[in-house]
Amino acid sequence: MNPVEIIKKKRHGKALSKEEINYFIHSYVKGELPDYQVSALLMAIYFNGLNDEETRLFTRAYIDSGKRVDLSHIHKPSVDKHSTGGVGDKTSLILAPLISCFDVVVPMISGRGLGHTGGTLDKLESIPGFRVHLPVEEFVKNIEKLGVCMIGQTDDLTPADKKIYALRDVTATVENTGLITASITSKKIAEGAKSIVYDVKVGTGSTLPDIKSASILAGNLLKISRDFSLGAIAVLTDMNSPLGYAIGNWLEVKECVELMNPALKKSPFSNDLLEVTLFLAGAMLFVAGRTNSIEEGIIMSGKKLASGKCYKKFIEMVVNQGGDKTFIEDLSQYPSPKFNDKVTAEKSGFISKLDALKAGLASVTLGCGRKHMHDKIDYSAGIILDKKPGDYVNKNEPIYFVYGDSAEKISLCKQILNESIEISENKPEIKNKVLEVIN
Amino acid sequence: MNPVEIIKKKRHGKALSKEEINYFIHSYVKGELPDYQVSALLMAIYFNGLNDEETRLFTRAYIDSGKRVDLSHIHKPSVDKHSTGGVGDKTSLILAPLISCFDVVVPMISGRGLGHTGGTLDKLESIPGFRVHLPVEEFVKNIEKLGVCMIGQTDDLTPADKKIYALRDVTATVENTGLITASITSKKIAEGAKSIVYDVKVGTGSTLPDIKSASILAGNLLKISRDFSLGAIAVLTDMNSPLGYAIGNWLEVKECVELMNPALKKSPFSNDLLEVTLFLAGAMLFVAGRTNSIEEGIIMSGKKLASGKCYKKFIEMVVNQGGDKTFIEDLSQYPSPKFNDKVTAEKSGFISKLDALKAGLASVTLGCGRKHMHDKIDYSAGIILDKKPGDYVNKNEPIYFVYGDSAEKISLCKQILNESIEISENKPEIKNKVLEVIN
Repeated sequence: MNPVEIIKKKRHGKALSKEEINYFIHSYVKGELPDYQVSALLMAIYFNGLNDEETRLFTRAYIDSGKRVDLSHIHKPSVDKHSTGGVGDKTSLILAPLISCFDVVVPMISGRGLGHTGGTLDKLESIPGFRVHLPVEEFVKNIEKLGVCMIGQTDDLTPADKKIYALRDVTATVENTGLITASITSKKIAEGAKSIVYDVKVGTGSTLPDIKSASILAGNLLKISRDFSLGAIAVLTDMNSPLGYAIGNWLEVKECVELMNPALKKSPFSNDLLEVTLFLAGAMLFVAGRTNSIEEGIIMSGKKLASGKCYKKFIEMVVNQGGDKTFIEDLSQYPSPKFNDKVTAEKSGFISKLDALKAGLASVTLGCGRKHMHDKIDYSAGIILDKKPGDYVNKNEPIYFVYGDSAEKISLCKQILNESIEISENKPEIKNKVLEVIN
Repeated sequence: MNPVEIIKKKRHGKALSKEEINYFIHSYVKGELPDYQVSALLMAIYFNGLNDEETRLFTRAYIDSGKRVDLSHIHKPSVDKHSTGGVGDKTSLILAPLISCFDVVVPMISGRGLGHTGGTLDKLESIPGFRVHLPVEEFVKNIEKLGVCMIGQTDDLTPADKKIYALRDVTATVENTGLITASITSKKIAEGAKSIVYDVKVGTGSTLPDIKSASILAGNLLKISRDFSLGAIAVLTDMNSPLGYAIGNWLEVKECVELMNPALKKSPFSNDLLEVTLFLAGAMLFVAGRTNSIEEGIIMSGKKLASGKCYKKFIEMVVNQGGDKTFIEDLSQYPSPKFNDKVTAEKSGFISKLDALKAGLASVTLGCGRKHMHDKIDYSAGIILDKKPGDYVNKNEPIYFVYGDSAEKISLCKQILNESIEISENKPEIKNKVLEVIN
């Protein structure tokens, strides 16, 4: 195999063969192919794309590069949820314990935040003691025991994806539907779930600007998932404004606990976070075969959440993975950030926009996320929305509260948050967060 | 500077700034930027191109990365010739001594063969003892003394181009007009000549398939050359069939000596090699200011060649650079390859095609060229054309003679050569090799 000829072939827009794709991926993982030839191929793929068959071959090669979790001995339906990433996107923290209350196992492998989007792993790690790095054997044991386990990507599963994703990240070759599809589906197939719901985010705070591009990715995810016998549904949800009221790792855990714990009634029950979470829960129960429709699943999930059983399961999961439940049971014990401030309305009117991208970037300046993979996270820092799009605000009334460990960071954060706000005289139409279901 | 953002910018088709281009090139040369980010940028450039200003900035950065030869103290016109590469393309061996007979200095820095095209350096090195790796100081001294010196690229001149070209070669990012232009012109500007003739090859045996793409490259070469005050003319010449009768390093030197030495009258005087060589010579004399037209230069060059003075100068140059002139003065002394064979006509008729790409690839199997940069060259191996396109051939009459050091290589070479031949019943129209002059 001549790597230059393979790169040239893709550069000319031709489809690569199984042998060529396997040669590139497996040689790279073995260290026999240099980074620079792989990055050149990735950039050629960025421009000329991968067809369905090539995407399937990439997915297969990623899976075959590592172990594959087998949960068949548990004899229960299994389901996972994957989000393409957004701001304030914390639904996994509720969905994993919630769905496992229905005798459906939830093996969930999540990622870290990068850029303006948050990551489930960082949120979990804000709970003191919570361990997200478990070997595959312990992951399987936890699922056997509790029906749910949430961990980070391990070296055992899809190591080829891990190595190639790291290279894509530093060579501006992330944004390609075929490569994204292979990366996501290979991980999901390797982790052992038999079905999956894809939450494909659409809008400024996501990687996909419009419904058209989101639909293309969703279609690809479904096609490749089914090629590998993974039951799948995609839900397109709006990410033009942050989801829920909190942005920042511990603040998001807190918001979820307030939704899960029936003793706490702080958040308005009918907010957008609940809408998206229950819809995804309904879709998960449906795709796992527990209900005959998404709607039936939504109703069952709402009842389960209100019953407090999901909260109880969340506590069990936290304890099972080494987390200190006292912080969950008494949210006020968590250390508060040294500094706080607020962003107020410059004029009275209806909030027509709270831009998710700007809010996400603002949260990164506080240390909620990373500009680079090695950046340190400030778990307690973050932003609380006091208003949501559609709300009326008086001049000088607060829109955001900001928490952080330095006045400089807060000042920079406020600047960016100010740019996120649009206020109009007329009440804007606020659409549902769930835009479309593709299955 | 964030390299990922710079790659992304070019990926989106935007023009890079001076600071961004300098950052990428100079950091790479210093070893501060990894290969994989540079190769990703190069592939993005392959797809989205470089505009004139970016090409100029690449050229400038390449030049500034090393020394620049100054020949102004010689007080004579100076001219070089650069070919984009072909099969049997040996004109430099005649042009360098020929033009220096007109009191015009010729500082010539050439390259090696790679892929199906031959390289002037390999041809020169087939002369026992000939040294092509000279320090810049010796290069200048030779030009002062003889008016001509032919060497290879040194580490002193345009090291950035050298490092980036090596990366382009292994990442399938060679074929881009902007990158090719910057690479060629920077070397020519750094080597100290004040004027240049570009021989832009067109056809199967070149890197440019048609007149349109060759004209674009030629236009770019002229534009950038003039931006740096280098007088320039481009000549588009046909490379659909090999130039002259010989392919292979020593065989090509021999063909040139037979043209230069008036005592030898072996080659037909009016062949295509002579046509192209004299035309380029005329263009060199014209662009150097020695004549008022290319045509005048052609006539003067033809006379000089016939006079034997060019041959005398060639011998002087060989001796001056350590070569053993006895092999030149008595061509029969050169060791012959162990094996030889011939490729014959399968039917009678007119030869309508002897494909240059196939002939070039066939010569590589004999060891005349390299598949990889570290491959060893067999200087005495090669192919002699017994017929040229337009010639009539009887069935079983030889078309090619093949020379090599193993029967296997010769067998493989013959197979490829067979595919290069097309014979037709009607006499094909044979056009001139010189297609167009752009200035």
